[in-house]
Amino acid sequence: MDQHIPYKIYLEEQEMPVNWYNVRADMKNKPAPLLNPGTGKPLSVAELSPIFCEELAKQELDDDTPEIPIPEEIRNFYKMYRPSPLVRAYCLEKKLQTPAHIYYKFEGNNTSGSHKLNSAIAQAYYAKKQGLRGVTTETGAGQWGTALSMACSYFDLDCQVYMVKVSYEQKPFRREVMRTYGAKVTPSPSMETEIGRKINAEFPGTTGSLGCAISEAVEAAVSQEGYRYVLGSVLNQVLLHQSIIGLETKAALDKYGVKADMIIGCAGGGSNLGGLISPFVGQMLRGEADYQIIAVEPASCPSLTRGKYAYDFCDTGKVCPLAKMYTLGSGFIPSANHAGGLRYHGMSSIVSQLYDDGYLQARSVEQTAVFEAAEMFARVEGILPAPESSHAIRVAIDEALRCKETGEAKNIVFGLTGTGYFDMVAYEKYNNREMSDYIPTDEDIAKSLASLPVIPE
Amino acid sequence: MDQHIPYKIYLEEQEMPVNWYNVRADMKNKPAPLLNPGTGKPLSVAELSPIFCEELAKQELDDDTPEIPIPEEIRNFYKMYRPSPLVRAYCLEKKLQTPAHIYYKFEGNNTSGSHKLNSAIAQAYYAKKQGLRGVTTETGAGQWGTALSMACSYFDLDCQVYMVKVSYEQKPFRREVMRTYGAKVTPSPSMETEIGRKINAEFPGTTGSLGCAISEAVEAAVSQEGYRYVLGSVLNQVLLHQSIIGLETKAALDKYGVKADMIIGCAGGGSNLGGLISPFVGQMLRGEADYQIIAVEPASCPSLTRGKYAYDFCDTGKVCPLAKMYTLGSGFIPSANHAGGLRYHGMSSIVSQLYDDGYLQARSVEQTAVFEAAEMFARVEGILPAPESSHAIRVAIDEALRCKETGEAKNIVFGLTGTGYFDMVAYEKYNNREMSDYIPTDEDIAKSLASLPVIPE
Repeated sequence: MDQHIPYKIYLEEQEMPVNWYNVRADMKNKPAPLLNPGTGKPLSVAELSPIFCEELAKQELDDDTPEIPIPEEIRNFYKMYRPSPLVRAYCLEKKLQTPAHIYYKFEGNNTSGSHKLNSAIAQAYYAKKQGLRGVTTETGAGQWGTALSMACSYFDLDCQVYMVKVSYEQKPFRREVMRTYGAKVTPSPSMETEIGRKINAEFPGTTGSLGCAISEAVEAAVSQEGYRYVLGSVLNQVLLHQSIIGLETKAALDKYGVKADMIIGCAGGGSNLGGLISPFVGQMLRGEADYQIIAVEPASCPSLTRGKYAYDFCDTGKVCPLAKMYTLGSGFIPSANHAGGLRYHGMSSIVSQLYDDGYLQARSVEQTAVFEAAEMFARVEGILPAPESSHAIRVAIDEALRCKETGEAKNIVFGLTGTGYFDMVAYEKYNNREMSDYIPTDEDIAKSLASLPVIPE
Repeated sequence: MDQHIPYKIYLEEQEMPVNWYNVRADMKNKPAPLLNPGTGKPLSVAELSPIFCEELAKQELDDDTPEIPIPEEIRNFYKMYRPSPLVRAYCLEKKLQTPAHIYYKFEGNNTSGSHKLNSAIAQAYYAKKQGLRGVTTETGAGQWGTALSMACSYFDLDCQVYMVKVSYEQKPFRREVMRTYGAKVTPSPSMETEIGRKINAEFPGTTGSLGCAISEAVEAAVSQEGYRYVLGSVLNQVLLHQSIIGLETKAALDKYGVKADMIIGCAGGGSNLGGLISPFVGQMLRGEADYQIIAVEPASCPSLTRGKYAYDFCDTGKVCPLAKMYTLGSGFIPSANHAGGLRYHGMSSIVSQLYDDGYLQARSVEQTAVFEAAEMFARVEGILPAPESSHAIRVAIDEALRCKETGEAKNIVFGLTGTGYFDMVAYEKYNNREMSDYIPTDEDIAKSLASLPVIPE
């Protein structure tokens, strides 16, 4: 235990995980199944397969297999940018003068700039293996679209990205990264799909929404021979792939005999948080260890802390299956002023069930406080964090300061999901002191929750 | 030799270099000294000290000490983002179907996005140690300014960056990264310096130049109590700090028993190239080993391949000392169409002397071919390279393809200096097939060489 811990712990190539860990296998209360919105019945692999790749549909519904082998082709791709470092935040500790030991798992050292690549490469691999020609998806700010473009380029798959029009126009750099990787990027709503043409006719000049882009991407997938639709968060399969984050984190801590006391992650759709905590929650579920786990969400989009645990539509367009999750209602739209990602109205079914069962806590934080933490972190740790990741930084700093008061030398581990290089418009607002906080009223939330679907009997 | 080589070789923390290597100590023909433009005499530490920190002035003139200890504070900062990985480019090799083994030293995994941070942190450290209040510098595209901002923030030093006005306006993201690190960024020419006001009066509406920004930064340094001027390339001290790149590269290769046959680096001012090759050239100078070393420069700014080896001004404003170097003339301005960095008219005195003595070759490459290489590299290796770095990629690919013809399994090592996340405007041009090549005519070069200074007797 007195072993010197380096600034960065890199696992050796041969220490990298060869299986993903499926936390559902250890859950007593399984996450609620996806329902067919027409029949109200759980969806089967056969029903999911026209939209998702078959292997991914199987992973989506597999509540039983604890370890799922990572195919060699995916492991080889992982070797190009993984293992990601587990960093001991010596400089942040010094700055805070805290007795706590702070560690962060940094997922931003790849060109997509975030953890999204972990699932993108898996989804592209299964699409290729199934002999598909390509995949379609939607992207908002562009992280997921970038990750998927990289993955498809590697496996020589066609990649069609529907990018919310306002982002397409205001974030040309992300768009160009995707194009450099050979993706076709279409501003949504477009004139290329029926739903796009309909929306354009109904709302001339609209700058689009994620819900609309999802609808277009799904339509494009089912209307082209050899295409499927892929999604970068929320789904069980995505959390499965993201378990690589937690597995590496745990292996690195174990290597140095460090036992985490607290694990903190930001939560949007829940894929990063779910992946990070999976192996630790697995220990809790099996009664082997205990951890304090904190999901951090923006006060402007507080699905866990203020949402309802209920079946809801996954998308604004209501074309996708119903999922049981903590939700603010599929019509909920966070303030445009909110700078980071983490704008999704719902939360992964796995994370939602674990939260409902008391395995994790949730905390919401306001935007200005998040950027204060981001700035401090950037200055002392030398990494400019993504606004999303900075939600976790905020709470990690708060907890480290609490340790300073109590004198406890807790081991705090948090997930640093990505870099903020493409978020400088938000940083500029913060630098100019033009950033403001927004918290929805109870009325706002009640209004959007009023539209929860009625499940057919 | 049959040992499996991982995709990424990371040295352990305890394997990191504790000394910089000063290649000048092993050079029989020392690089020519900096001259006082007024007297034509070599500059002393005392003469350099009003502009540079004293310790850096000493390093600048030290031609004798082979190993200079890296202070512990700098080594601790290095540990936050170093060792950088030496990557075995398995995927690129496969794509090219070459028998060559390709390795690249990747310096882009830090927020400044390039190798510049290696010297920035050293220069900030010595400024702090000398009790200075702050430093001034100029920046064009912003890599150096970003690196220096990060370094100054770490040591709590004031940082004043004069940013060429056209970049300040067109590259707001880099500017905001610097501001996030607490730097004061001023568009140049400004109204804050005498030279800035003069230039603004003389050329109303000018968008500035690097030469003008240098002049403003130097004036700001000498006119404020407790400030010095710092520079990110060309100087001997910078090459010294950048030797960390080559030392780590060599240690990583040695660890796996790999002998490089060929070492390739892009060359602008020469700091990255000089740092990468230093320990290898040291072996050549001591007669211990032989390598083929290739400096790659853009055809649009060909100082080594088409310049003259002569004393010249280091800056367009002619306020800096004279340096003997391969130069195109201090008035040379590459085409505005040229997308990458590597726009400096001259070349490090050390690199120039080594080139003149035959220790390295030089090759120039055209812009479109560079971006073709960048795109291929991004797609197979998963890293979006900086345009500067992509010059080295181009030649590495060319040499690997040559190996394919001859069947030689050469070990090709190149420097990947940084990422291209802030260069998407150039990528967009390439994606849209709007990029063109530019090669200066012999007349262009002769014209700017006509203004070489006359050295006082």
